[in-house]
Amino acid sequence: MTKNPQAELWSEVTPEAARRLMVAAVESFAERGYHATTTRDIATAAGMSPAALYVHFPSKAAVLFEISRRGHEKALALVRSVTSGDPSPAVRMGALVEEFVCWHAQRQRVARVVQYELHALPESEFAVVAELRRETEQVVRDLISEGNAGGDFKASDVPAAARAVLSLTIDVARWYRQATAPPPRELGRTYARLVLGMLGANQ
Amino acid sequence: MTKNPQAELWSEVTPEAARRLMVAAVESFAERGYHATTTRDIATAAGMSPAALYVHFPSKAAVLFEISRRGHEKALALVRSVTSGDPSPAVRMGALVEEFVCWHAQRQRVARVVQYELHALPESEFAVVAELRRETEQVVRDLISEGNAGGDFKASDVPAAARAVLSLTIDVARWYRQATAPPPRELGRTYARLVLGMLGANQ
Repeated sequence: MTKNPQAELWSEVTPEAARRLMVAAVESFAERGYHATTTRDIATAAGMSPAALYVHFPSKAAVLFEISRRGHEKALALVRSVTSGDPSPAVRMGALVEEFVCWHAQRQRVARVVQYELHALPESEFAVVAELRRETEQVVRDLISEGNAGGDFKASDVPAAARAVLSLTIDVARWYRQATAPPPRELGRTYARLVLGMLGANQ
Repeated sequence: MTKNPQAELWSEVTPEAARRLMVAAVESFAERGYHATTTRDIATAAGMSPAALYVHFPSKAAVLFEISRRGHEKALALVRSVTSGDPSPAVRMGALVEEFVCWHAQRQRVARVVQYELHALPESEFAVVAELRRETEQVVRDLISEGNAGGDFKASDVPAAARAVLSLTIDVARWYRQATAPPPRELGRTYARLVLGMLGANQ
């Protein structure tokens, strides 16, 4: 576990001012919601002037889109890398759930913005993110179908089971509190076991 | 399924103007979030003047508290009534999940406000709602423990399993769309089967 997973998440964003604005936006959106946040709030939280924000982002929606798009791309890359490893579908599903739960618990504020402010995106930006979500869900469905075919899983309704797997992991962003909940990795392992039970895996 | 579950939800609220303000507040909060909504927005949506709102509620926070408290009281009453029925823990758990999923799918906008705007509540009001949530979670834990004791369930980590059961049902309020998702009752039954699998019930 890194000390500041939020900074690490966007280490690839340059220039550093753009990254700082994204971090400030996450804090502002998490604090008072997207609609009640102004570009001035974001700029101030990043220690910049509103004019300086516009150098990097044309609008508040553009900041949200950048946070959302990058979050969803990371999630898709994560499920793809995890599900192309071990030959056993159960081992891969366990790893997928563990990593996804960790991601949402370690970066709870970012995850909340990514998962809950989706509908504030303008239509064309929403479509980009919706496609990334569809692809992520497809990876999960394919893995469940593969497990069913080989007798590892017994999930009678694949789309519902895939939805439930993602639902369980996403909801971590709603309720997780570092002070009272188990550490992210431990929670991830517990949830992996619960999901494998849900899919009827012979554990 | 009723035609307007939202109106039915608060049929006991009198006078009718207070009920109308709560319905209008749910729409406004769902549309632009709690923080970006003003008492004027709520009053206007209810076809009333801001002054008329203050006859019924001292503040915007008081409207949110009324929505949240009643929502959580209904949820607690629902899990209690369902879990005091059939002798089989698996049958009761199935009914609990089915009803809870239905509730969140049928009243998606209310459920979103109830589940996601919690932290906008003032401290003492938050404490009331937190206690209702704690009691609801306890009912679910007790049911899982009872099932474990009688050999109906095999849940090794009762608090985590209870959290996961509630998490799955609550997250319905985030993703459910009437146009594209299965009908609430059907979804409830599918999720009941998934949860029973998760708890290791012999189905």
